[in-house]
Amino acid sequence: MTALDQALAFLVEADRLKSVDRQTWLTDASRQENAAEHSWHAALTAMVLAPFAREPIQVDRAIRMLLLHDLVEIDAGDTFLYDAVASADQAERECAAADRLFGLLPADQSRADRALWDEFEAGQTPDARFAKAVDRVNPVMLNLATQGKGWRAHGIRLEQVLARNAGIAGPLPAVWDWLRARLEQAVVAGWLQP
Amino acid sequence: MTALDQALAFLVEADRLKSVDRQTWLTDASRQENAAEHSWHAALTAMVLAPFAREPIQVDRAIRMLLLHDLVEIDAGDTFLYDAVASADQAERECAAADRLFGLLPADQSRADRALWDEFEAGQTPDARFAKAVDRVNPVMLNLATQGKGWRAHGIRLEQVLARNAGIAGPLPAVWDWLRARLEQAVVAGWLQP
Repeated sequence: MTALDQALAFLVEADRLKSVDRQTWLTDASRQENAAEHSWHAALTAMVLAPFAREPIQVDRAIRMLLLHDLVEIDAGDTFLYDAVASADQAERECAAADRLFGLLPADQSRADRALWDEFEAGQTPDARFAKAVDRVNPVMLNLATQGKGWRAHGIRLEQVLARNAGIAGPLPAVWDWLRARLEQAVVAGWLQP
Repeated sequence: MTALDQALAFLVEADRLKSVDRQTWLTDASRQENAAEHSWHAALTAMVLAPFAREPIQVDRAIRMLLLHDLVEIDAGDTFLYDAVASADQAERECAAADRLFGLLPADQSRADRALWDEFEAGQTPDARFAKAVDRVNPVMLNLATQGKGWRAHGIRLEQVLARNAGIAGPLPAVWDWLRARLEQAVVAGWLQP
C-alpha cells in the first residue's frame, strides 16, 4: 500500500464514526446525536469559545484533538458520561482502538495524530484541558435545549452533572458560570434530579 | 445579550446542521449522511490529505473553512452537486443564510468567520482551493464504497462526476489520479453511467 492508499483507507474507516450513537439528543429532540456530528460540533465550539479561554491556547491544536478525540469509539463504542461500570475499563478499550485506528495511517501521520490523541486523553496541557472542557459544553447545552431529555432518561442528578463537567470551570470560567446558573434552573424545572 | 450569550446561541443554532441530509450514503449504505457529520469528515480529510497538497497551504485555515462551509445549509438546504436547477440560485440563497447565521456571533468573530466562508466560496486562495478539493473527495469515496448508491439513484454519468469534481486535480493531483482510475472501473461495474 502507498501512503495515499493508507490515508484514503483510514478516511473510509473513519466514516463508521457516523454510526456510533450517543446519549445526547439533538436540540429538536428528533433523535440522539452520533459521535461524528458531535465531533464537528465540538471543533466548531472550540473556534467559537476560544476568546473565553482563561489561559493562552493554540486553538488549532485543540480543534485537531477534537476532530480525532472520538475515533476510538468506532471500536470501543460511546461510554455514557454517567455510566460508572462502563467507565471502569474505558481507557483500556479505547487504547486498543487507538492502536488499531491510528495504525491505519501512514507512519509519520500515525505518530503525530496518536500523540495528539494521547495528549487530549491525558488532559495535562493547556490545549488539551481546553479541548476537554469544550467537549463537555455541548452535551449540557443540548440537554438544556431539550428539557433534560438525556438526563431524564437516566434519572441524572445535579451533583453528577456538576462533578462530571467541573473540568469546564478551569479553562472556560465564564461558560461554567453561565451553565451552572441554568443547571440550578433545570432542577427547579424538574429536568434534573436534585 | 453578552458576547457569551451570542456565542452559545450560535452554537445551539448550529446544531440544526445535523438535520440537513445530503445525497451521499454512509459506507455501510444504512442511511444518507447529514451535513454536520460530512463537515467533520471533510475537516478530518484536510488533516489527513495535507501531505498530498501540491502547493503550500495553512491546513488549519482550511480546517476552519470546512467546519464552517456548510452552515448556510441550515437555511438554504443542501444543493445536490448534479442538480443544475437548484444550483442556479444557490449562491443567492446561501449568501442570505450567511448574513443571518454569522450575524448571530459576537461582532469580531462574525467578521472573521464570514471572511473565511467568503474566501472558501470564492476559491481563489491556496487554502480555499485545497479546502474545496477536500470537500469533494469524500462524496466520491462514499459512492465508490457503496457501489455508486447515490449516483445510481440519480442516473449520474461519468462525465458529470469528472466535470463537477475536476477541482480536486489542481490541489490534490495524486488523489485525483487515484479517484479517476476507480471512476473508470465504476463505469465498467455499472455504478456510473458511461
